[in-house]
Parts: sequence; C-alpha cells; structure tokens
Amino acid sequence: MTTTSKTRPALNGVDTPTLFATLDAVKANPELAKFQFRATNRWIGGTHNRSMIRGFYGAGQEDATRTEDFVYDADHPAVLVGTGNGPTPVEFLLHAIAACLSAGLANIAAARGVALREVSSTVEGDIDLLGILGLSDQVRNGYQGIRVSFRISGDAPDEVLRGLIDQSRARSAVYDVLTNGVPVSIDVKTV
Amino acid sequence: MTTTSKTRPALNGVDTPTLFATLDAVKANPELAKFQFRATNRWIGGTHNRSMIRGFYGAGQEDATRTEDFVYDADHPAVLVGTGNGPTPVEFLLHAIAACLSAGLANIAAARGVALREVSSTVEGDIDLLGILGLSDQVRNGYQGIRVSFRISGDAPDEVLRGLIDQSRARSAVYDVLTNGVPVSIDVKTV
Repeated sequence: MTTTSKTRPALNGVDTPTLFATLDAVKANPELAKFQFRATNRWIGGTHNRSMIRGFYGAGQEDATRTEDFVYDADHPAVLVGTGNGPTPVEFLLHAIAACLSAGLANIAAARGVALREVSSTVEGDIDLLGILGLSDQVRNGYQGIRVSFRISGDAPDEVLRGLIDQSRARSAVYDVLTNGVPVSIDVKTV
Repeated sequence: MTTTSKTRPALNGVDTPTLFATLDAVKANPELAKFQFRATNRWIGGTHNRSMIRGFYGAGQEDATRTEDFVYDADHPAVLVGTGNGPTPVEFLLHAIAACLSAGLANIAAARGVALREVSSTVEGDIDLLGILGLSDQVRNGYQGIRVSFRISGDAPDEVLRGLIDQSRARSAVYDVLTNGVPVSIDVKTV
C-alpha cells in the first residue's frame, strides 16, 4: 500500500499532516508567509558581545510562544586578541548552514515517506585574515569557501537519500543567503 | 599629548599593543593569517538539530585553547511545524552580523584611541516563506533584506563614532559573506 504525499503520517519527528495543512493554509493566504526575524546585541568588552533572540513576526502576528530569550555570546579567541568567551561570529555561519540543511532534510524526508536513522554533518570554512586585518587588498574579508559534508543513513536507497539533500539545498534559506548574498543596511544612532 | 596608533594603550577591553604586535607578526609571516573554522551538526529529530563548535586551525597550528565545545541548538517554531528547541537557522545569521560588526568596532575604536561607553544593535531580517515552502518561483528562499541598527555612545564626536562603524563594515568577514556570498559545496556520504 502506498500513500500519496498528502496522506503521509508523521515521520522523523515531523508532524507531516500538519506540515501539509500549513502548506495549504499558506497557499490560501500567502500573507501568512511573510516573516521577520530579529536579534539584539550588546557589546560587553573587547571583541566579546552577546545576542538575544526571541521575538519574531510571522503567520500574520507577533509570536507569543517564546517565553525566554535565546542568548549567544561571540568573541575572538586569544590568538586573535580576544577573550574566547564564545565562538567567532563567522563560526555561527557554519552552524546556520548545517542547521538549515538538516532541518529541511528531515521535512523533505517526511514528505517523501523516507525514515531517517542518522544525519550528521561537518562544515569547514576557509578564511585568510589578511583581508580583515587590512594587510591585503587582494584577499576578501569573508570565507573563501565553505564545505559541508553530510553523513546520512535512512530507510531508502542511496540515490533517494542524496536526493533529499539536493532538495534541501534547493529550498534552504541559509544556503541562498550564503551563496547569493543579501542586501544589508546599517544605520547608526549616536547617543 | 597624542599617541600614534602604534603606541596606544589597551582600551575598550582591547589589548591594543598585542593587537598591533599581532598585525606586525602577520605582516612578517602572511601564512599565519590562514584560518579554518569548523562546526559539526547532529540531527536530533524533526527540525531540531545541534551544532558543536570547538576546533579551528589558525596562526600556523590547531587551536588548543578551547577545552570544551560550544553547543547550539536550532529548530523551527511551532508555527513552522517545529518544536521550538532553538532559534531558526536564519536567526543565527542575524546574531553573526551583529557580533562581527560589534567586535570589529571595539578593535577599531581601540586602535583609534576612542573610548566606547555603550554599543548595542538590533538586527531585522525579512523573509517571505513562499520561497522555501516551494509555493512561488518568484520569491527567493533567503532573506530579502537585513537591517542593522546600531546605538553607540563613546568619547568622541558623532562623525568619529559613525566612522568606526563604517570601518568595521569595511573589514567585516560576516558582512562580506552575507552581502557578497561565498561558494558552498555539499558532499554526501550515505551509510
């Protein structure tokens, strides 16, 4: 007995019926798809600072489900004259791409009826600090390249498992931002 | 009495003499500027997954100063059929840009002899989920725009404080990656 995608049961920890119901709701009212995410950051000292993530707008309203801030420190390590109280800002980009691809993969696998057993990934980003240190005009400030290596086991042939990653990449918000860039505006108020 | 940049004392929690000594060391041996940052991620269930950040290569060797993993969960909120065990992956991008600009600002202020009192920022990212939900070919997957708003107070005139942000942006690794994009390769091993 096969199921069509619309009647698939929950799988991989994904509430597949609700996922499809959500798609239908957004199809009927595309305004629900407009989201705004936010972070606030406070400088602590030196290269050490802290972000709070909590509120967001989406599905037509301000979120009320998050009752506490998610709090993240960032810092430079001692070798970069920091105090090592958190990862460097660029390392959070590596977390973001792994997390986005992994979340998408689980949703897509559920939608396709593929049971996942394990998914893990490693991400490496190469950066030449001659750019940010202002020591070379020929070197960019950011990563020169990022490599993501996935390791997947699940209840499907190799090519089906690989297809999950392909589709996750094709629909990944972080992959899009990192590979295509996004306009970033910066406003300053002095007090 | 004025100081040249090379003789400025520590300021803003930045060890300015060591910062300039580091610049000199890298100038003398540009290989020291080659860094590789890394993250590993493990899928937990549904859209919930967890990254570990610890090891990195830089200044000619593997880092040995981080003795524990930095651990970060990511998830989708309930409205996006997740379990809300962490921020969404795209929210970590907002943390990353705020953290990078703030860290650079403190370094630059120290190098210029500007004492900072307070620095805070808010970051907003607008995203239309019609893209990642596969409901429109006309909508990108990622953020359509990111806005960073800084609030700075320090011991310098307005235009000097604003100049710190300009220079931080000009040398920000995360700003470069987010605005210009970076090649991301994805490799899959099925097991």
